[in-house]
This record gives sequence, C-alpha cells and structure tokens, in this order.
Amino acid sequence: MTNPSDPTPATPPTRRPILIEHVAPSVDDGRHDVKRVVGDQLEVSADILRDGHDRLAAVIRYQCDGDGAWREATLQSGDNDRWSGAISLDAIGRWRFTVAAWTDTFGSWVEEMRRRIAGGQRELGSEILEGRALVERAATGARGEDGAVLRRVLAETATAGSADQIAALLDTRVRAAMARGEERADLTCFDRELGVTVDRARARFASWYELFPRSQGRVARRHGTFADCIERLPDIQRMGFDVLYLPPIHPIGRTNRKGRNNSLVAAPGDPGSPWAIGGAEGGHAAVHPDLGTLEDFSRLVDAATEHGMEVALDFALQCSPDHPWVREHPEWFSHRPDGSIKYAENPPKKYQDIFPLNFASPAWRSLWTEILGVVLFWVERGVLTFRVDNPHTKPLDFWQWLIAEVHRRHPAVIFLAEAFTRPKMMRALAKIGFTQSYTYFTWRNTREELTEYLEELTGTEMAEYFRGNFFVNTPDILPEVLQRGGPAAFKMRAALAATLSPLWGIYSGFELAEGDAVPGTEEYLDSEKYEIAARDWDRPGHLKDFIARLNRIRREHACLQTSRGIRFCPTDSPHVLAYVRTGPAGEAAVLAAVNLDPWTPRSAQVDLPLAALGIPPDETYALVELLTDVRALGRGPTLAVHLDPAASPAAIWRLARWRRREQHFEYFSS
Amino acid sequence: MTNPSDPTPATPPTRRPILIEHVAPSVDDGRHDVKRVVGDQLEVSADILRDGHDRLAAVIRYQCDGDGAWREATLQSGDNDRWSGAISLDAIGRWRFTVAAWTDTFGSWVEEMRRRIAGGQRELGSEILEGRALVERAATGARGEDGAVLRRVLAETATAGSADQIAALLDTRVRAAMARGEERADLTCFDRELGVTVDRARARFASWYELFPRSQGRVARRHGTFADCIERLPDIQRMGFDVLYLPPIHPIGRTNRKGRNNSLVAAPGDPGSPWAIGGAEGGHAAVHPDLGTLEDFSRLVDAATEHGMEVALDFALQCSPDHPWVREHPEWFSHRPDGSIKYAENPPKKYQDIFPLNFASPAWRSLWTEILGVVLFWVERGVLTFRVDNPHTKPLDFWQWLIAEVHRRHPAVIFLAEAFTRPKMMRALAKIGFTQSYTYFTWRNTREELTEYLEELTGTEMAEYFRGNFFVNTPDILPEVLQRGGPAAFKMRAALAATLSPLWGIYSGFELAEGDAVPGTEEYLDSEKYEIAARDWDRPGHLKDFIARLNRIRREHACLQTSRGIRFCPTDSPHVLAYVRTGPAGEAAVLAAVNLDPWTPRSAQVDLPLAALGIPPDETYALVELLTDVRALGRGPTLAVHLDPAASPAAIWRLARWRRREQHFEYFSS
Repeated sequence: MTNPSDPTPATPPTRRPILIEHVAPSVDDGRHDVKRVVGDQLEVSADILRDGHDRLAAVIRYQCDGDGAWREATLQSGDNDRWSGAISLDAIGRWRFTVAAWTDTFGSWVEEMRRRIAGGQRELGSEILEGRALVERAATGARGEDGAVLRRVLAETATAGSADQIAALLDTRVRAAMARGEERADLTCFDRELGVTVDRARARFASWYELFPRSQGRVARRHGTFADCIERLPDIQRMGFDVLYLPPIHPIGRTNRKGRNNSLVAAPGDPGSPWAIGGAEGGHAAVHPDLGTLEDFSRLVDAATEHGMEVALDFALQCSPDHPWVREHPEWFSHRPDGSIKYAENPPKKYQDIFPLNFASPAWRSLWTEILGVVLFWVERGVLTFRVDNPHTKPLDFWQWLIAEVHRRHPAVIFLAEAFTRPKMMRALAKIGFTQSYTYFTWRNTREELTEYLEELTGTEMAEYFRGNFFVNTPDILPEVLQRGGPAAFKMRAALAATLSPLWGIYSGFELAEGDAVPGTEEYLDSEKYEIAARDWDRPGHLKDFIARLNRIRREHACLQTSRGIRFCPTDSPHVLAYVRTGPAGEAAVLAAVNLDPWTPRSAQVDLPLAALGIPPDETYALVELLTDVRALGRGPTLAVHLDPAASPAAIWRLARWRRREQHFEYFSS
Repeated sequence: MTNPSDPTPATPPTRRPILIEHVAPSVDDGRHDVKRVVGDQLEVSADILRDGHDRLAAVIRYQCDGDGAWREATLQSGDNDRWSGAISLDAIGRWRFTVAAWTDTFGSWVEEMRRRIAGGQRELGSEILEGRALVERAATGARGEDGAVLRRVLAETATAGSADQIAALLDTRVRAAMARGEERADLTCFDRELGVTVDRARARFASWYELFPRSQGRVARRHGTFADCIERLPDIQRMGFDVLYLPPIHPIGRTNRKGRNNSLVAAPGDPGSPWAIGGAEGGHAAVHPDLGTLEDFSRLVDAATEHGMEVALDFALQCSPDHPWVREHPEWFSHRPDGSIKYAENPPKKYQDIFPLNFASPAWRSLWTEILGVVLFWVERGVLTFRVDNPHTKPLDFWQWLIAEVHRRHPAVIFLAEAFTRPKMMRALAKIGFTQSYTYFTWRNTREELTEYLEELTGTEMAEYFRGNFFVNTPDILPEVLQRGGPAAFKMRAALAATLSPLWGIYSGFELAEGDAVPGTEEYLDSEKYEIAARDWDRPGHLKDFIARLNRIRREHACLQTSRGIRFCPTDSPHVLAYVRTGPAGEAAVLAAVNLDPWTPRSAQVDLPLAALGIPPDETYALVELLTDVRALGRGPTLAVHLDPAASPAAIWRLARWRRREQHFEYFSS
C-alpha cells in the first residue's frame, strides 16, 4: 500500500492557502438554484479563513444570464470568520454567484503598523520601506485617480521624515486606492457556482381562482364558453384574485369517456373529463370547440389582463385514445406484445380512457421537443403560468430540461407542480425547477400539524426553493373539515391559507361553501370533472365579501407577501392557532388568531413576542382588526381573544406601536 | 434575454431519470473525508427516487486506495425514500465510495404481476410475454448458474399453461438471477465520490503521557537522557498510558535563548526552550546531544513498544537563529528590506529567538519537500505519531499536501493538531487531514459548558471528522481549576477527560498534582519549557493509582473507546455532571457522575435514561462502581449520588441488567 521509495514528492501546481466554505444561500451545495423574485436583495455569506494574522478581502462575484460580465460586491467580515454581503436582483432570469477572497497585503501592513505604533515601537524605518515597496508595485499598473494617489504618496515618502512618511502611508485614501489597485495575492474562488432563479413577483405572491370554463354559462347542462368566462371576471376581480386558472381547455376524447361521478360509461351528452385530452378536433394545442376558438381564448386572456388577472393553463401530459398523437406518433406510447397501445394502469386499477406518454421510448427526443413546442405555443398566446398535472409521474430529468428550455426563452413563465406524493419527490420537483408547488396544507388541521408543517416549509432549507401554494380545495380534494364544518370551516381554512402563505387559491364553489362529497371520499358529489355545473354565484350565504377582505388584507400588508417572518405564538387553547407575521423594517406586523374548531366558540390567551415586534413590554400598542375594522389598544405580552365561528373563526390584527403625538395615532386620523 | 426564434431545442445527450441525493456520511459534500478506524462498519445512506411506480435497485460502490477494483454492497430501501447499507472497513488507508442506482425492470414486472394476481386479474397472457421478453434479453449474456436458471425458465414457459408459466417466472431464483444479470436500466451514479480516511485503532482510542526527556534524570539541573526515559517506562505503563509524547528532542539554539520563566536573557547553563529548534549540532533531523544519539532514541522507541506504548514526537516548524537551514537556505525565510531574516512577531510582541519559515516564499516547493523529508526521516525511525505545534500559523494547503503525501506512503501515521485558535480554523485543520485535534476542554468547567461542548463535538457533523484529544494540562496550560482546586480538582478533571473522550492525555507532573502558576496566568511557575525539572515520582499524595484505574476502566469498556453514545442525564444539582456512555450492542454501559466543585461534597438525584439502556422501569439492575469496586442494586429511573471531593469527586458505574438466574449475577460470582 505504501511506496517509501518514491523519491520526488510533487508539490501542488499552485498555492491555495485560503479556505472558503459554507457559501449561502445554496440548495444541496449548488446542485439546485435558490429562488427569489425580482427586486429582492440576495444576502450572501461564507466562512473565509486562512492561517496566521494576515487580513483577507472578499467579494461576491455574480452574473445574470445574458448580461455577460461578472460583477463584484464586497463582503464584510463578521463574527466567527463569517463574511456577508448582498446583491440586488434587478432582473428576471437565472443568476449565478460565487465568492472570491484574497490576502489584503497592504491592509495587513497597515494594521501591523497601527499595532506597532500603539505598542510604542519607535524604529519603523524597515517597515516604512516595506510599505513603500507595496505601493510602488501597485502604482505601476494603477491609472486615473488611484494612480495619482499612489504616485503622490510615493513622492511624499521618498524624502520626508519618519512621522510624515507614516502619516502619508496610513492615509485612508491610500488604503482605498491600494484595495482597488493591489494585485490580489492568494486569490481563491469558492469551488462551485451557485444559482439563483429570479422570478417575477407573482411567482411568490398571488391569489389563484380555479374555474371550469364550461360551467360558467349559468344554465344547467349548457356548455359554457370563454365568453362566459369573460362575464365572470368582474366578480372574480372583486374577490381579489389575480390568477385565473383553467383546467384543460382542449378537445376531449370520446373512446372510453367517463360519465357523471366517474362512472365507466358515459351517457349521451356527458361532456367527459377535460383531462382526457385530445379528439378529432385536435390535441394539446387546440381548444375545445364548445368553448370557442383560439381567438376567443385570446380575448379571455386580454380581458383577464384588463381585470388585473392572468390566465393559467393546466398542463396535463396524457392523451385520450383519440388524441392526434396516438395516430401520428404511436412511437411516443408504450405497447403491448401484440402491438396495441397500453392504457394507464396502477395495478390492479385501470384507466382505460387515458394513454400515458412514454418519456423513455426510443423516440423520446422527438416527444420532448414536441412537448416543448406545446408550451411555447401557449406562451406565445399570452399564457405565462402553467399548473402541471401530476408531474411526479413523469421523469424528473424531463421537467428539468423542459423548464430550463422554456426559461431560457421566457424567464417570466411560472410552473406550479400539482404533485401530491411522497415528501422527497415533492421537494425534488421544486428543486429541479418548478416555480411553485401544491402542498399537504389541505390535510393539516390541528395546531400541532399546522405549526410543524409551516416550520418545515419556512424554517428549513425548503424555504430556499419550495414555494407552497395553499389551495383550500381543488376539483380532486374536498377536505373533510369542509364537508363537515359548514361556512365557518370555509372561512377558517381561507383565513389560514391567506395569512400563512403568500400563495393561496380556491377552486370555484368554495365561495359558495359547497361541501357535498361522494360519501367516504374527498371527491365532490356530481363533480364538475365529469359534468357541467350551473351556479348562482350570488346565492345567499356566499363568502365573497370575506374572501375579498382577505385578499385586500394581503395586498395591503407586505408581511403577508412572503413566506418569511412567521412566528407562532403560544396560546392556552389547543383549538386556537395564533401567529405573528413580520415583514421588512418599517412595515406593519400582522397578528392572526384562528379558531380551528368550526363549531364551538373558543377563547384563548395569546402570548405575543413583543421583543420581536419591537414593542417595549410596558408600552401601549394599537390593534386594528382587519376583517371588522374594530380598533383597540393593547398592553403587555398577553392578548385575550374570543373567536365565535358563527361570526368569524379568525381575527387578523395589524399591530403598531403607539406613536408619540396624538395626531399620529392611526385610529385618531381615521 | 430570450431567443424565441431558436428553432431546435437540444435534448440532453443521455437520460438521468433517477435522483440520488444527500449521500451520508460526508463532510461538506465530499470535499473532505469522514474519519473511521480499521474494523469499523461504514453505514451509508442516501435519498434515491424517480417518477412513477417502477422499483429501484441501488448499491454502494467503494474502493480502498491501491486495491484497484470498485466493489459493490447492496443498499436496502427504507422509509421516506431513504436507502441504507454498510461496508466493512478492513484496511487502513483512504477509501472512496459513492452510490449507484438503476431501475429494477424485472423486479417491477414481478411486483406488478403480484398486484394483478392479488387484484383478481385473469387475462395475463400479454404480461407473461413481457416477462419472458425480459428474461430472454438477460439470458443472452448470462453465464454459469444464473444463465442456466434463466434458460430453464424460458424453456419451461415456452409451452406451459398460464398458471405454470406465472409460477415459473415468479420463482425467487429467477428474480435473483435477473437482479444479477439484467442490464441496469437508467443507471445513475451520485455525482461525487466521498472519502473515508481509515486510521489504525489508536487514532481514536489512546491515552497520552507527555514528558520532557531532559527532566527524567531525577537529579536537579542534570540533563536527562533517552536512557532516563527508558527507566521511567514501567511507571508510565502502570498508569495505563499508551502514547509517550516528547516535546522537541532536537538541538536548541543559543542566539537569543530564553532563560528561566521565559526571561529574555538566559543565564549560563540555562538549557533553553526545546521549541527553539536547531543549533550547530543540527536541525529537525538531529537529536540534542545531551539526550543521546539517534541510536539511543531508537532504543527508547523499542523499549516503549515493549511496554505497550509508542513514541510521539513534537513537530514544530520553526527555527532558532542557529538552525542549519538559516545558513543553508535563507530563501526559506522572510527578509527585511536590509536583507536580514525576520524573527517572529505578532506586533507589538516580538519573539527574537525564533525565525518563522516562509511557506509562501518563491522557494516554497523546496521547503515543503524538505519538510516532508523530515517527517519521513522520523517515520523510518519508528515514529508513527506527530503532535504538530501551532499548525494554524502555517498554511492549510501545506498541511493538506504534507499529510496526504505522508499517508500515501505510511497510512498509519497519526497527526495531532495543537491548535488553540478560532473554532472554524480548528475545524478546518481537522477537515484537511489532521487525525486528532486539541480542544477547548481545558476551558470548559461548568455543567452547561461541558454539555454544550460535548454535544458540539459528538452530536454535529464534527463527529465525522474532528477527534478531540482531551488534555487535562499541557506545558502551556495549567488551568485555573487545577491552580486552585488541589488534588480533588486533578481527579475531577482526569475523570471527566478519561470518560468523556476516547482520547485523553496528561502532561507529566499532573499525577503529582503540580499546580503552581505564574500568578495571573496559566503558565507553570518554573516551567520545564525553560529549565530542567527533577521530581520524586512517588511523592506522597500522587494520583498514579487513580489515573491507572481510569485507564483500566477505559480499556475494559468499549463504550469509552469511541466518542459516540454520550447521553447527559438531568441532575438536580448544578455542580454534578452525569452522563451515560453506551457502546455496541451487548457491551456494558457506563454511568459517570462528577462533582464539578472540588471543594464541597455535593449530592444529586440523577435521572437515568432507562429506556435507552434497555432496562425496563420496574426492573432491578446491577451497579458496579469501578473506581472503588463497590457494588449495588438500582431500581427505577432515579439514582441518588453523593460525591465528596476529598474522597473521590467522581463515580463511574458499570450498569448491567439483572439476569435471570442467581449464578449469573456478576456480583454473585466474584
């Protein structure tokens, strides 16, 4: 194992005396990007160290895709060899950064000189010569003002007496010019480049509204249209939503079409599931003729924009047996030994109305390219958000490639992963590129469950890459608490989602407190997935005003627009969840208290983290309950709350310090 | 920023559908090695996942330097997509490992068949054809027994009826042959190779004894010799130590030699500091003539071996002004503008008896090579352990290179880093290769300090690479508690070090409870660093029996031979630190309780973690106090302890379950 006779040990080709470690933020050591939105500051930190007493200097090196040059931002040293700094993410796109450090030779000389002088050392001639030699070396290449400064100090110190020489060499302008002009000794770069995906603001802060276009006609069994959707926009806008998400709008297959309530045989006139994509009329790049034309769709996109919304499309990579690809590209599907195409199965379950695509077939390259073309087709028609159906049943490397290819051309595109699967797969999808992710929120009901889950999402590395979108319901999920809890449960869950997560959404019908399920399941009874619904959107008892108020509170409070700054407050009731949201300095904090029991009024004492809120323990503070506009004063770290679900299961206060002069009180001026 | 006109998106060159993440153990994502000793099992785990329902298979791929071929060990899937397995580290050296995974195509087919059959599916002809096709493909390349199995099942299923065909294809022997013989679909390897430095056992478990050879003569002011050291070996062996560590044994400089108690001017006859290395008689590869010859040194090495010990040398990379290198290689030092060599400084402090080496001089390659030669010189003379003086004042990349070059030739060599400096530098030295490290133990005195520090060392990533050597004193550190606390404090600190850490050490004089300091400092008064000491090693009040007992307890209990399995027990006294050490299954656990107050008897109730010890709450257990051999029975989770420092500040119990039959009780048979 040993070779003692090896006579000539090779020294390394270059020196690397500086160690740069633990550069943050990063996900899995730079294998995946952290996520930010445009306008954010990216706080960067690193451990940087070397032997001995020499001073170090360090920078962030960074670049935004396409802008070519590497730029630099200074890192400052802090406690325990940790350095930190920040860069402004002023453009959407993929940013890269790393950290570089070097020995600050002249700075080290300056600090040693100061210590010598402070220590009473008198004979400094040799040290002055060393300092001048450093300046001389840097002056050779220095231009402009720095060059002038360095040449001037050399001239001044060539003949002056020792005290004057020292004063000139220790001048802060010389130090600054040397910092810029001196060769970077021992220059070392962190061994990886880290990535930051910088999205537009709506990637992090948005309120989604999902509707079936065919159900927007308000007439039983009449197929609604894009034009009907346009009619509904003012209502949705009043509720405060800004993303209008449509299940698949494509032609629907006829072969093995599912009937009402997921029955195996469709009755005549049954419209089928929109997720059985493709028919004689076309596939993923066509629209269902009963909804209208591509031009009608464009009109909806434009009208949504006028109402402050954008249209999000469902992106479901599966085909009905009637999809044009089945005929034109059988090589994109899996086949049985007899040559027939395989339908979807999860044995013993069979899904005979769906042909899954085979992403690993020998023809995978042409399939992937075609799919990219489909996305780009819709992007060119103004769709910048895609809710991706069941991404966990398609390969991770496919998504990584697809999202990167789309972002290379259109970095503003948002992809929401509709994966309800194992925790690490949900995380993996977010890591490899999905902008947002569905979550387990619908199944988190108790105080402990919600606290633990939010701490996982916001207090671990997940906060760097996983943006949970808290849907309170979906066409596939009518949670038990909504089935049983009536309107109070709907309000309770909406208040939680809207104040715990900057991304939340409802599926239409929620605002009408629709809660009828197929017994023993989370499936809607008479689900819109298989039939056309008709609703009176102004039905008595609707929750539209409550929802509108929630969305207004979100828009008016920056602390609710990120997932940072959630702090749960101890309460003395297991049924009351309370939390404080804090935002950027100078922005108001929000306190929410939610009664998780939709049937029973509950009282609780809430312990407030006054120190974290910047409120002295003996100072009075102002509270404005934002759902009711009721104002109050508070004092001390305990707040008594009483939440009657029949009135409102939630209270949401803006908290503000009492200001010095009476006319500055916000409750005074209103 | 975008290029929508790019018409031909490039698909990736190969598919990578499987994600392998978070492979453990690793340090900084494989940048540094984890440390183990020969004979250990290395437990490896990883997150492995892919889309859909296909089964995966995975292995550890591993290699020990020099043995050439990559070997494989199976990983088993566990909860939450975490896979785990182990390899036996059966040789000293540098091991590398990674993880590979692939789609288990035939296994997936088998599992689907089982679910189809369980689900009542009758028509399976198409599925049987698919299974046979998989076997056919694998059979082509399969040889030996596996080939025979596969060809046989193909023959059996060519004509048989469906039930027999299924039974034959689902035979476990077929599954096993396919697991070995089927092509590995989607084969994916973790993107990094991780390293394991496997040391000899003494790298992790050893008891060090430090002595100044020149003080071993027992006659005041007479310079001791290596022969005197040999005389002392039986005494040291009786105390149970197995590493005999010597401060520098080289010629000592005369220029600017320090006098007694670190005075700036030496008196005639003052021997100087052994760390002022080098004189007319030679440098780092010579021995001080007053100690003896190189042959005398070899005799000491051999005698130590006969006494169950090895000799560790101090490795201090600095020179007295009289070192031969100063004359022969002035290019290895730093120079003033006037050409003179710089002495060591940390302004305003000056160390005029020491010339530091310049590791970054233009001649660094020849210097580094020379230093490597020095280490190899001593290795060839039987020294396999080096205590490295102040490594944090020399470059990290130098140490990384030096240790790797030594280990490439002699993987058994142990390097102990004597760095008392900033936390991240101490960690960095351990990461880049030092086998063991000095620690902050001497300055951790209270229950909270000790608990927090041990949890950092053993409960964080540091446990993977940082092996703390708990010295209770050194020639530079006489801790305050030993200056003030008398023999009880010496026993207390020795008991802590010996039972909290598998590596501990004393500097000679400790066993005599020597506690006289230069007032207001941690320096020994009349320090051996600057003069020759003479001691009566059998002086009344010596602690040799206590120390011998500690080392015997360590040798007899495997749980004290690693840093794993430390669990602190709550006590109701802030002065009593209690902890349980558990080892490999089947090995006895040890409970220690230490009175941290060396002056006052203290009582405490100790809460025992009975569940972790495998003792039912209602079961009686046996306790043997190992310092006194006093036996007792215990029952229930609370143990009352009373520790009188005048008798013994520590109690160390072996804990054992009460066994079924009377003659099996250990207290019965003794």
